[in-house]
Amino acid sequence: MLTVALYQGPESSGVPANLAAIDAAAARAAAAGARILVTPEMSTTGYNIGGLITEHAEPADGPIHQEVAGIARRNGIAVVYGFPESNGDRLPYNSIQAVDGSGQELATYRKTHLFGSDRTYFTPGDRWIAQFDLDGVRCGLLVCYDVEFPENVRAHADSGTELLLVPTGLMDPYGHVATHMVPTRAYESQLFVAYVNRVGTEGELTYCGLSCAIAPDGTELARAGRGEELVVVDIDPGELAKSRAINTHLDDRRRDLYRRIR
Amino acid sequence: MLTVALYQGPESSGVPANLAAIDAAAARAAAAGARILVTPEMSTTGYNIGGLITEHAEPADGPIHQEVAGIARRNGIAVVYGFPESNGDRLPYNSIQAVDGSGQELATYRKTHLFGSDRTYFTPGDRWIAQFDLDGVRCGLLVCYDVEFPENVRAHADSGTELLLVPTGLMDPYGHVATHMVPTRAYESQLFVAYVNRVGTEGELTYCGLSCAIAPDGTELARAGRGEELVVVDIDPGELAKSRAINTHLDDRRRDLYRRIR
Repeated sequence: MLTVALYQGPESSGVPANLAAIDAAAARAAAAGARILVTPEMSTTGYNIGGLITEHAEPADGPIHQEVAGIARRNGIAVVYGFPESNGDRLPYNSIQAVDGSGQELATYRKTHLFGSDRTYFTPGDRWIAQFDLDGVRCGLLVCYDVEFPENVRAHADSGTELLLVPTGLMDPYGHVATHMVPTRAYESQLFVAYVNRVGTEGELTYCGLSCAIAPDGTELARAGRGEELVVVDIDPGELAKSRAINTHLDDRRRDLYRRIR
Repeated sequence: MLTVALYQGPESSGVPANLAAIDAAAARAAAAGARILVTPEMSTTGYNIGGLITEHAEPADGPIHQEVAGIARRNGIAVVYGFPESNGDRLPYNSIQAVDGSGQELATYRKTHLFGSDRTYFTPGDRWIAQFDLDGVRCGLLVCYDVEFPENVRAHADSGTELLLVPTGLMDPYGHVATHMVPTRAYESQLFVAYVNRVGTEGELTYCGLSCAIAPDGTELARAGRGEELVVVDIDPGELAKSRAINTHLDDRRRDLYRRIR
């Protein structure tokens, strides 16, 4: 059993305050028995903050990484967090990183599918599949708009991902992505999905919350509201094989047909 | 504007009674201004009828086709219907056919993705994309389990399908396919979907109805209940371009990445 905490927060309020909120959430998550805390897209800096994105950009082992590694170590819990990753003279990447409970980097993923407004501030990543193992569970990473593409979730399933972690910054009026599409992704590609959204407003954007954890049979294991919230959920990896024995979508693909056109 | 009628029925009651029910639905649909009547998977024969499937199997221009062509002609409306299509000495195909308002065949499609119990009675089809034009709208055909595979809907979008017609036989406890997955398909691949289910029980199966018409922005244009029902809905092809200008999923695919693994 892997206990996962979804931190739907904080409202964007500057890097130090954001880090303090993540630290507090990590303490509560660890106290609840969680082994990993997943936070939203750009959780450390804010997302819709204009040119501040570039000002905050740093390498994957920079000061924000050091701060989050400290949070992970102090609380003895793995943490997934979002940050702008510097990219030489070019626009930064929209990145997420997982660190383990000792503060070591497990994996860093750069968002590959940029949403409209992303393109002003970010360079798309070129490494498709980022994964790490935690307590024997193979975890995969995607960011927000990435999960709207079934190809990405298929590729994770084919690469062995059992639990897909998706920090996001989903805004109104796209709540149906959280309520309809994310459960569909879990079911059609037969894996667990934890989708962790921002809250509050930033400029013209109002985030819609609705973070969720979905089982491979499509069941909602947990669903947050629209405000700041910490959701703790147990993921039973044994359910994956049970669901895949009944829901044989991955085996039932007709790759012979798909290849003819692609 | 293309007015489409979704006939969620009839309860399986033998070929003559099924055809009579389709005839009555065609009359009501035509009176309501519909240009096409879509009926469920195996609408003419019943679906979970064991060896009767093989007994009823016939060529795409056989007696059932002649009967439905007569229904279409008499009512001046195109009809999509399901039937077992004979296949020499092998198991028949799980087919659907569209005929126009003069009774001429527009397209025949053989289900390519067989669901568990299908495999006892059917041979999977090998032609992936079946389409026809009606009043200037490019219509595509899939059957039931086919639509659970995002690859199939992507291929239709890439082939120019604007309105995807999906006769189905969805049973409990899979209602989430109708309520969550079908709207997701329409949104992620930016096309209209009309999903038309069976009702009632056949043997151990209880069909869950919930037929629907979904716009490319994910909006439910119509949603049926669980009983026999005729739903008439207006499809505005102009909404397709409007939605695709906002929801740029098809253009935003990273085929450069997808090709590396496939």
